Amino acid sequence: MKLQIAVDIADSRKILEIAEQISDIIDIFEVGTPAIMKEGMLPVKMLKEAWPDMTVLADSKIVDGGAMECKDICESGADIVTVLALADNATIKEVVKTAHQYGRKVLADLLCVTDIPKRSKELIQMGVDYIGVHTGVDMQQEGRTPLADLRELIASVGTSCAAVAGGVNLDSLPDYAAENPAVIIAGSALYKAKNVRAAVLKMKEVMHS
Amino acid sequence: MKLQIAVDIADSRKILEIAEQISDIIDIFEVGTPAIMKEGMLPVKMLKEAWPDMTVLADSKIVDGGAMECKDICESGADIVTVLALADNATIKEVVKTAHQYGRKVLADLLCVTDIPKRSKELIQMGVDYIGVHTGVDMQQEGRTPLADLRELIASVGTSCAAVAGGVNLDSLPDYAAENPAVIIAGSALYKAKNVRAAVLKMKEVMHS
Repeated sequence: MKLQIAVDIADSRKILEIAEQISDIIDIFEVGTPAIMKEGMLPVKMLKEAWPDMTVLADSKIVDGGAMECKDICESGADIVTVLALADNATIKEVVKTAHQYGRKVLADLLCVTDIPKRSKELIQMGVDYIGVHTGVDMQQEGRTPLADLRELIASVGTSCAAVAGGVNLDSLPDYAAENPAVIIAGSALYKAKNVRAAVLKMKEVMHS
Repeated sequence: MKLQIAVDIADSRKILEIAEQISDIIDIFEVGTPAIMKEGMLPVKMLKEAWPDMTVLADSKIVDGGAMECKDICESGADIVTVLALADNATIKEVVKTAHQYGRKVLADLLCVTDIPKRSKELIQMGVDYIGVHTGVDMQQEGRTPLADLRELIASVGTSCAAVAGGVNLDSLPDYAAENPAVIIAGSALYKAKNVRAAVLKMKEVMHS
């Protein structure tokens, strides 16, 4: 089980300050979509220049133009790119092909997908490396959580490719860890913590105890 | 009927060179997703600084974090932001609310939506300003076009909010213009033309003759 921090801050300087504190202990460092929307691949490049050995995920949420967009992201140094599971199969295949040519991995984000068992099996067949259930921030405000979705995903494709995101915090972490997904993604519970390093260490302790 | 150029080049310098040629004659100048993915809002800011009166659309394809992402895009100066029609209603509503607070407009992109009549009516009810049928670049390579989708959209919500994108060129333009949508979006047929200004003028002539 890996811990991924999703840093949804649209400011490269602040993203680097967070990385400075946890580069040696975080399994996957995610540059969130808001940062990409505002600053493009700049934060990804800066992170990989400063910490080449840290695994960086660019939450690009590609939904079209698979080859072109994936190429630019891989050339920025990202180790993992994301594609929307809702995208056309042609796009998913282009992203997988391009990322694998660069030796990178692909996470398909199930955001807004209703038939998780069916789509996740198709995604595996298309060569996707990770599949993430994801309750979006706007949906979280309506009280929704991704736990039932995670169980449905794991029942369909197993634990080794499964990732979960959407409001995971220290209280809810044991429920997610009990399902043993490959990746648990936490956002504001980590990056908004007063001591980000301590928060990461505490979550890792809970995950592996 | 307005003509929108979709500039799917991930290079601010080249985007500005194109705008230099057509800023006075193009109805809507789109900064494509590949540029946003690579350079963030930089090209949008540069365009609005150079040509404040040119209408600039940021093809942001927001799918989550509606308020935060839309705010950053509006503050970069974009006149129109895009949201994926596939996004959760909570996200669509946040994007519409935020954009309208800034006096900006929202285009919902129907990319990969199957039930166009149903979703387009919902989008209108949520206050979206434009709805675009869109055959993605990866789908175009499979020979698909958006003409039937455009007719379905117009039958459902009329012409005044309808936009169409997906491989429109000078040959196919008369078919789209005959449907009288609010916006016709052309990409490589314009920005890859030897003389971009002449290509824009020719398309406008065809649209309005």
